[in-house]
Amino acid sequence: METKPKILLIGPGGVGTIVAYGIYYVGKADISIVVRRDYEKVKENGYNINSCDYGEIKNWKPDNIFPNVEAAASYGPFDFIVVATKNLPDIIKVEDLIEPVVSEHTSVALFQNGFDLGRPLIAKYPGHVIISGVSHIGSHNFHGEIHQTQQDKSFVSYFENSTVSKEVNEAKTKEFIALYSNEKNNCTYFPDGKWNRYKKLVYNASFNTICTLTGVDTGRLELSGGIDTIVLPAMREIIAIAKADGCELSDDAINSAIHSDDGDYFRPSMLVDADKGNPIELEVILGNLLRVANELGVAAPTLNVIYNLLKVVQFRLKEANGIEKVPKERPINDKYWK
Amino acid sequence: METKPKILLIGPGGVGTIVAYGIYYVGKADISIVVRRDYEKVKENGYNINSCDYGEIKNWKPDNIFPNVEAAASYGPFDFIVVATKNLPDIIKVEDLIEPVVSEHTSVALFQNGFDLGRPLIAKYPGHVIISGVSHIGSHNFHGEIHQTQQDKSFVSYFENSTVSKEVNEAKTKEFIALYSNEKNNCTYFPDGKWNRYKKLVYNASFNTICTLTGVDTGRLELSGGIDTIVLPAMREIIAIAKADGCELSDDAINSAIHSDDGDYFRPSMLVDADKGNPIELEVILGNLLRVANELGVAAPTLNVIYNLLKVVQFRLKEANGIEKVPKERPINDKYWK
Repeated sequence: METKPKILLIGPGGVGTIVAYGIYYVGKADISIVVRRDYEKVKENGYNINSCDYGEIKNWKPDNIFPNVEAAASYGPFDFIVVATKNLPDIIKVEDLIEPVVSEHTSVALFQNGFDLGRPLIAKYPGHVIISGVSHIGSHNFHGEIHQTQQDKSFVSYFENSTVSKEVNEAKTKEFIALYSNEKNNCTYFPDGKWNRYKKLVYNASFNTICTLTGVDTGRLELSGGIDTIVLPAMREIIAIAKADGCELSDDAINSAIHSDDGDYFRPSMLVDADKGNPIELEVILGNLLRVANELGVAAPTLNVIYNLLKVVQFRLKEANGIEKVPKERPINDKYWK
Repeated sequence: METKPKILLIGPGGVGTIVAYGIYYVGKADISIVVRRDYEKVKENGYNINSCDYGEIKNWKPDNIFPNVEAAASYGPFDFIVVATKNLPDIIKVEDLIEPVVSEHTSVALFQNGFDLGRPLIAKYPGHVIISGVSHIGSHNFHGEIHQTQQDKSFVSYFENSTVSKEVNEAKTKEFIALYSNEKNNCTYFPDGKWNRYKKLVYNASFNTICTLTGVDTGRLELSGGIDTIVLPAMREIIAIAKADGCELSDDAINSAIHSDDGDYFRPSMLVDADKGNPIELEVILGNLLRVANELGVAAPTLNVIYNLLKVVQFRLKEANGIEKVPKERPINDKYWK
């Protein structure tokens, strides 16, 4: 009897649940999920999915539902771990989160925002394939009610990884795609994952961050003149870093990023997170980029100021979530500043 | 019969009302005020002042109360116009506001935050002395109830002005001080007004602006590491601009600015304005400074990014106050961005 490969998905939000359902729909893998928030509800009733790809599905349950990663471990070993959580390494590191479920032959697929996400995983798990999923989807999860409004379109690649041969990286990535791609979604193998992540950063590291600091949507950012004064300088720095890193973006990269919300007063995800009082994906969107810029010796003065300002915003958001503590009396710092 | 000089004060907020009362207390001038908000109430009942300088005063009224500048004009000519409003030249320019009450021999005293405030007034009113009042006071006005908690300490100078001789500038400034200084307040003639404004900017153009963008008080800015990463670079740029402009600040300027809130989680005035949804004094605090930096060829990369971000914040605040209009449908801008 042939056994199906086992997949564990962590982070069943709007994106993650549709990825899990897509795998379930293909039917070639055993799909388990870790549900932290809403575990009792989902364990009992499953998900109600209203999907532009798959239609109306009531009380869907994957093969297994676990309340946390530790509980999932006994069901392993897993062939693939799919991580679709927010990526907040300054709060919880993906490589630590998944530790209980990484076995000798486990590959890890990161369906997450950000840049250079593979690095800490490759360092901690040499010899493991780390897959990159860049998702373009509109989907939200309200306590087990999934509302998907835009097709699940994704570009799947692998993170550059000197501890694994190109052949194995490619084979495992395509094996994952075969378990996930179906006639409803649009999942494409994309050879140059790094280039693709840089392309997405042209928008995410500029609009996302600048809208968060200023509290406006992308339309108001344009109407206020902020595209010329801040967005463009930031985008040019991103493109210069990409170029120094061997990724040449087309002349049109800036233009298409700026026009991508045409007609919409769009509030990017980082601004939405901050508005909700949640921590922001600052480190993976901007911190990792600036780390690479620094390694390559590329100046990024605009992005650096934006990053340092957002670090303070992140501190405020962490304090609001009980992650940072501030003493009741402000301590006096005797340092002589100069 | 000797007639008293006439003074008109515009902007009787926490600071302005105490300045007006100080002049009234001295008794050598005829003091009128323009009250826009709360005119009916103040006209009827005057001010109730609870002052650390002057004690408890009920129903105080100056010599005249006018509902607007135009109404005051017929009572002129005025020897001095004191302006103690918020200084928001991107919304209303002081030189336009006071136009109805500037007569041939009127001097203007600006008790306002910011830098290089004299320039537009000197351009519009050559030959008039423009006095600079830098106030250190804790005082608030809640609809006619004045609560002053910190002594009215002010440094009074004149703005550099090539259209008036040094002698006249000095004489008029001292004449004003004689009408205002008394044994309760602490009003000092300060010869180098520009230097003093630069000194205040070391704090105001850095802490004020950065706290506004990040939404934290100065204590949290320190605890989050923001002083090292943003405040210090900004302060060093301010000091470099001052130096190029002939104003040498001491080695201790940065240290004392950073330690000035020691022990307090202090929310600077610009952050308080933004929190209340009011427009911010961005142009006079940072815009004017960067204009001078530009004229002098001094690079200020950190301050420029902060300024451009805050311009977008100001747009948002103006929209909230009905000063900027945003079309219901986001217009599509066909521009090719590159």
